[in-house]
Amino acid sequence: MTLKLYELVGTDEARPFSPFCWRTRMALAHKGLTAASIPWRFTEKALIAPHGAEKVPVLLHGDKPVVDSWVIANFLEDAFADAPSLFGGEGGRAVMRMLNWWGDIAVVGGIFPLVVADIPAHLDERDAAYFRASREARLGKPLEEVAAGRDKGVVGFRKSLDPLRLTLKTQPYLGGVAPNYADYIVFGGFQWARAVSPFKLLEAEDPVYAWREKLLDAFDGLARKSPGFAV
Amino acid sequence: MTLKLYELVGTDEARPFSPFCWRTRMALAHKGLTAASIPWRFTEKALIAPHGAEKVPVLLHGDKPVVDSWVIANFLEDAFADAPSLFGGEGGRAVMRMLNWWGDIAVVGGIFPLVVADIPAHLDERDAAYFRASREARLGKPLEEVAAGRDKGVVGFRKSLDPLRLTLKTQPYLGGVAPNYADYIVFGGFQWARAVSPFKLLEAEDPVYAWREKLLDAFDGLARKSPGFAV
Repeated sequence: MTLKLYELVGTDEARPFSPFCWRTRMALAHKGLTAASIPWRFTEKALIAPHGAEKVPVLLHGDKPVVDSWVIANFLEDAFADAPSLFGGEGGRAVMRMLNWWGDIAVVGGIFPLVVADIPAHLDERDAAYFRASREARLGKPLEEVAAGRDKGVVGFRKSLDPLRLTLKTQPYLGGVAPNYADYIVFGGFQWARAVSPFKLLEAEDPVYAWREKLLDAFDGLARKSPGFAV
Repeated sequence: MTLKLYELVGTDEARPFSPFCWRTRMALAHKGLTAASIPWRFTEKALIAPHGAEKVPVLLHGDKPVVDSWVIANFLEDAFADAPSLFGGEGGRAVMRMLNWWGDIAVVGGIFPLVVADIPAHLDERDAAYFRASREARLGKPLEEVAAGRDKGVVGFRKSLDPLRLTLKTQPYLGGVAPNYADYIVFGGFQWARAVSPFKLLEAEDPVYAWREKLLDAFDGLARKSPGFAV
């Protein structure tokens, strides 16, 4: 059965940048699977609506659409049960539901104001206009004004990573001795930032930086080879 | 082999209140184990020093001391492997290391300024003096001043529970369909607050409130029966 993945891109079709799509890309690689990429842009809602989706990632397994990165991870774990586990058992799956929310709120939500102003430059005119209008409505201020506070904001973001940082003192990955979906949940946010922004999220001496480096190298450098800024 | 647990108390020996000791109490109950409680007070450092400990919980398995709530949880999981699992497998164990830090920082750390001023009233004169001096040094201000900001501070604390709250929308416990150590990590903080302070941490309509109620009732009401405020 073929696998296809709708992934968010901008003007460069080879530069996928959604944090949620990157969770899925890493999960596919973990399972030893390849999916044909279908580039998708913010304003192409009509392309995925037939699959019951409003956002990406959308995975097509043959004709069957699987929507939402968390649902996709669960689908991959169950449909490809003989491949390396994403969750490390049912206890891992259950607790990762919470880690996934932490990743959405603390990591993706924390990075958002730090990189948001750099995103329109990667988009064509129509997507850029949509992105700016929708995000400025959400933020209640112009993107440039959000960006102006990022040198100060990044301090709080780095501090918010303490639960991750402290965990890495006693184990190399959130998943334990090897990375699993727990790591991809968090890494997706960093890979999104790397694709769209030269802003320095982490200091080089931060254990989180070293952890990110290892994930950039994972799967034969899957993430590092994807276009991005050296940060 | 007998089990004994050093637990933090104040003037009432039957009112253990450490968030970390409560993690262990719940873990013991989960494993179907009982441990004789050894009441311990803040200034009784000399009692646990021979066990290589500076803080509680300290579990004695026969003569063998096991120190630190996370280490104890791992010990119980491995030494009593046939009893119900605390982690739900190795994936759960690995990811719970991070959840444990999140519990320390967001939950215990978040509750601390909200209840700290209520703690000295539960302590004898010597412990109260030690507690006030050490905590005021850490906080950089008098306990009463910390407490004065709690009506405002609790709003941010409640918001910080969003990863837990959102998880409870799709599963009854952090551990999945039944509670496990993931739940006890977080619950320990609430049970600490309940033992020492009448301050209202949660609103009754909060899904976290309903989750806490279920854990208060777990193991035949182990936590609810322990002396505390109705909050």
